[in-house]
Amino acid sequence: MTRRRHILAAPALAATMAAAAAPAPAAAQPAASGAGRQAPGFFRSKLGGWTLLQVNDGLGRRPDPRQGFVRNAAPAEVEAALRDAFMPLDRLDIQYTVPMLETPRGLVAFDTGTGGHLGETAGRLRDNLRAAGFAPSAVVAVVFTHFHADHVSGLTDAEGKPVFPNAALHVPAPEWNFWNDEGAASRAPEAQRPAFRNVRERFAPYAERLNRFEPGAEVMPGIRSIATHGHTPGHTSYVVENDGERVLILGDVTNRPELFVRHPGWHAVFDMDPVMAEATRRRVLDMAAAERLRIAGYHWPFPALGHVAKDGEGYRWAPASWSPEV
Amino acid sequence: MTRRRHILAAPALAATMAAAAAPAPAAAQPAASGAGRQAPGFFRSKLGGWTLLQVNDGLGRRPDPRQGFVRNAAPAEVEAALRDAFMPLDRLDIQYTVPMLETPRGLVAFDTGTGGHLGETAGRLRDNLRAAGFAPSAVVAVVFTHFHADHVSGLTDAEGKPVFPNAALHVPAPEWNFWNDEGAASRAPEAQRPAFRNVRERFAPYAERLNRFEPGAEVMPGIRSIATHGHTPGHTSYVVENDGERVLILGDVTNRPELFVRHPGWHAVFDMDPVMAEATRRRVLDMAAAERLRIAGYHWPFPALGHVAKDGEGYRWAPASWSPEV
Repeated sequence: MTRRRHILAAPALAATMAAAAAPAPAAAQPAASGAGRQAPGFFRSKLGGWTLLQVNDGLGRRPDPRQGFVRNAAPAEVEAALRDAFMPLDRLDIQYTVPMLETPRGLVAFDTGTGGHLGETAGRLRDNLRAAGFAPSAVVAVVFTHFHADHVSGLTDAEGKPVFPNAALHVPAPEWNFWNDEGAASRAPEAQRPAFRNVRERFAPYAERLNRFEPGAEVMPGIRSIATHGHTPGHTSYVVENDGERVLILGDVTNRPELFVRHPGWHAVFDMDPVMAEATRRRVLDMAAAERLRIAGYHWPFPALGHVAKDGEGYRWAPASWSPEV
Repeated sequence: MTRRRHILAAPALAATMAAAAAPAPAAAQPAASGAGRQAPGFFRSKLGGWTLLQVNDGLGRRPDPRQGFVRNAAPAEVEAALRDAFMPLDRLDIQYTVPMLETPRGLVAFDTGTGGHLGETAGRLRDNLRAAGFAPSAVVAVVFTHFHADHVSGLTDAEGKPVFPNAALHVPAPEWNFWNDEGAASRAPEAQRPAFRNVRERFAPYAERLNRFEPGAEVMPGIRSIATHGHTPGHTSYVVENDGERVLILGDVTNRPELFVRHPGWHAVFDMDPVMAEATRRRVLDMAAAERLRIAGYHWPFPALGHVAKDGEGYRWAPASWSPEV
């Protein structure tokens, strides 16, 4: 890798300089609407006769993830994992991607995104859904993994009105019971109280169309729930199956895979019962690796799909490729 | 993982069945234009004060890649690599993504895609570029890695007219000389003759604005060429640098990274001098790993960006994350 300039470079460079002096066509014409922006954040793939539609809601940005983000790893260990994954050290982007199923009866969503209530870099679910060809009224069911604000706040808009006028909600009973327990709310640390209030406000307009189920149940034909408690008291994942093809809706069993798939023993600050969350994480990743399950991870980088395989003391993560074909 | 249905599942299921019997809102309203499709294939990221705009042209689909795609690996070895990457065994999708630089003087493209001349699953560059906010007239320079049909055919449309009315072309001299050498054309195997004809036809309308340079030269300020011969006689890569940030425009030094980054000793059928191509591949991957260079790989899965790191006898590939933020 030398920097020496070859004699024949001169004409090329001279031509470029001449072109540079000429009027610039790009600047001369008005930029179309896409200039400066990303493409809409949706991605389709087949799941038997259904379509799995991943809809991005944007991201939340945290400061230096070496400090305080992983409860039980030293900053140097976290830095090594970040460097290993070629991620920045000074910030951590945590994306939100809502898996939806396009079925003959309408859309089934897993969680709702932030609804624009959690900062300007998120709240894009409705725009991205519209770009994919659907209004929120096309959603006939929302199935919840858990009730943290970045998963339930998309239920209502800025005026508190329901975003999904035609959706029945399916909620894991233990998760519902925890967040609607006056005792739990009063015992919760001060910092957690807004989360309790948030749950009540978001679900209020949907009271008449709410179904509680016990984890383990088949919530709808083809959608089986699995108790994956720990991240929250009633956190629940799903295995969706259609025509013999399956996908695991992971929820928050892991946060970013470069950290918590690679190091399943690491505890993210968001895990409410870190020990139970770790046991759950190891059990679910073991199962997903053994069965070579396709996984949709809510906080995985968009399109938030991939597989895991055992690798040393942890797992490696193989993200699914985006494709121009569905 | 049991399949037993919990007693509390019944109400949830009953409600769903009731909902299923009701009119389906999704079917009742006309689907918008995005229904059934993918989002446009473009992706932006920063490169100093410039923007790196990756524009997808679609893909080519090959049959069973275990048979005949890798010249010097047994089908079982190729199958193991495919399974390791959770890729299908019965087909191989090879994407085409053209890196472009958004500079104050206009767009600089590296290669041109297929132009729709190579099958229906490709030829989307112009649509994706338009979705990103630019007409082909915004391209002020096209810099070529090599002259295989999937890299140069996008120069002209179905009527043979130039697609880029304002672009100067920058071509590596040894690549130009090989494909325009009457002797080489006459000595080439019958199957290669159309490639020679293709080069002449595609470049013909640009004869007056063609710059040849010797690999090693700085083609334009901030764009340094590197001789990476082997895949074709004059194959050339580029290191682009702006404000201290760099990206390696790889071209076809590797085809799909899951096979040829992982196994740099493997020879894809497209490599014209497989031994030289392997030596080049090892040298370039060594350099990219040592310098932790960001890489744009023409046949890497979209957004066709990532990094490589040494891993055992080969390298591992860390794809860049798509992000809703630029």
